[in-house]
Amino acid sequence: MNIPFVYVAFDVVDLKNAVNGIRALGIRGVSVTIPHKTSVIKYLDRVEGIAKKIGAVNTIVNENNILTGYNTDATGISTAFREAGVKLRGKNCLILGSGGAARAAAFVLCEAGVGHLEILSIENAQLKSLVKDLKKHYNTRITGTRWTDESVRNAVASGEIIINATPVGMWPKTDDCPINPDLLTRGKMVFDVIYTPPITRLLAEAKKRGSGIISGVEMFVHQAAEQFRLFTGLDAPVKIIRKALKYKQ
Amino acid sequence: MNIPFVYVAFDVVDLKNAVNGIRALGIRGVSVTIPHKTSVIKYLDRVEGIAKKIGAVNTIVNENNILTGYNTDATGISTAFREAGVKLRGKNCLILGSGGAARAAAFVLCEAGVGHLEILSIENAQLKSLVKDLKKHYNTRITGTRWTDESVRNAVASGEIIINATPVGMWPKTDDCPINPDLLTRGKMVFDVIYTPPITRLLAEAKKRGSGIISGVEMFVHQAAEQFRLFTGLDAPVKIIRKALKYKQ
Repeated sequence: MNIPFVYVAFDVVDLKNAVNGIRALGIRGVSVTIPHKTSVIKYLDRVEGIAKKIGAVNTIVNENNILTGYNTDATGISTAFREAGVKLRGKNCLILGSGGAARAAAFVLCEAGVGHLEILSIENAQLKSLVKDLKKHYNTRITGTRWTDESVRNAVASGEIIINATPVGMWPKTDDCPINPDLLTRGKMVFDVIYTPPITRLLAEAKKRGSGIISGVEMFVHQAAEQFRLFTGLDAPVKIIRKALKYKQ
Repeated sequence: MNIPFVYVAFDVVDLKNAVNGIRALGIRGVSVTIPHKTSVIKYLDRVEGIAKKIGAVNTIVNENNILTGYNTDATGISTAFREAGVKLRGKNCLILGSGGAARAAAFVLCEAGVGHLEILSIENAQLKSLVKDLKKHYNTRITGTRWTDESVRNAVASGEIIINATPVGMWPKTDDCPINPDLLTRGKMVFDVIYTPPITRLLAEAKKRGSGIISGVEMFVHQAAEQFRLFTGLDAPVKIIRKALKYKQ
């Protein structure tokens, strides 16, 4: 796009001095990833809307030495649903997993006014804490459920929208599937946050059984596009981003 | 060269946090320019040889979080002389100016064992301080002289090697010349630290009158090549650097 920006990886040694370094070196902005998405917040000047509720940022923008945190993972999820024509309001939703991606997805669903949100996880403490944090902000009916064969069967049966936010099925173990595919019946909408491969085993099985699917590539592209817009003030070349992703895969 | 480096400009807001940011962000190294070449030293872990004597660095390298300062302006000057086949030992040398470039040149000449070094300047305090600093480290015969029509005439007449370290003649005022060209007689070696234009009026006049000349481009290329080597551990593609410079001019 002929703009004077370059995007590079910093191997962060010391988070506090790294953030002060962003200011002192006049860096326009950064993407933030694991393990700094939550711990970085205390060094920022501001945290924008849903990022504050989620308690995690994946983007920092430096505007005249004022650092503001954003969460474009959340934007990426909501844009992916919107572009797929999925209305979330009032829906019966299921999230598999309770880690960072699940957390972002859960806040997006509550924000959109879903009817019921069930979260299935094997991580009991993390699950409880996520449900507690959600209930601080939303009156949505929210259920945190311990992951068992039976709870998975029931939750999948009643879920209209199912989001996999576990790493199961990610490259290189692409034959894995977080749930038994035979539990999937037609007419659901299945979203996988994994983007390698673009179509996971879960999505392939869901499609075969007559459900709609949304690839993690959609979330990945849209969180990046939103970062690009925050950094540059310009609309991202989404077609080129998609192309670049395809070349890598 | 297909190596994972990118070289960008940082608009430094706060020097201390910028240097700590280099460590914290895992940046491999930086070039340092005016006004930070001297003031940055107090934040470094080490300063290498001649840079320590000069009291100025133009390069910082981050090796396992240890920051070392270098002065490749000095290397650039000595390499330019060496490549032009000029022997400095025992020579009668004249430097015009007493600023940062003059300072680097003066230390290089003393280090190389010149016979006499005269420095001409209109900045009396800066001149005295430079001469004093040089005398701390070298037994060389050094004269600091106030710039007058007469002192210039005498100094140019006896100088075998003349270095212009003033900005006079730099683009856009390329018709300017730091000294009256008629003072130049044949058989001298004239070096101009200015590299825009590559051949200044001073150099053109010196050549016309039968003196050898060294362009500031030589110093510029070799200080950059040495930085490249310090950052990457690889020899710089000097031919490509020269080509890139030509395209810009």
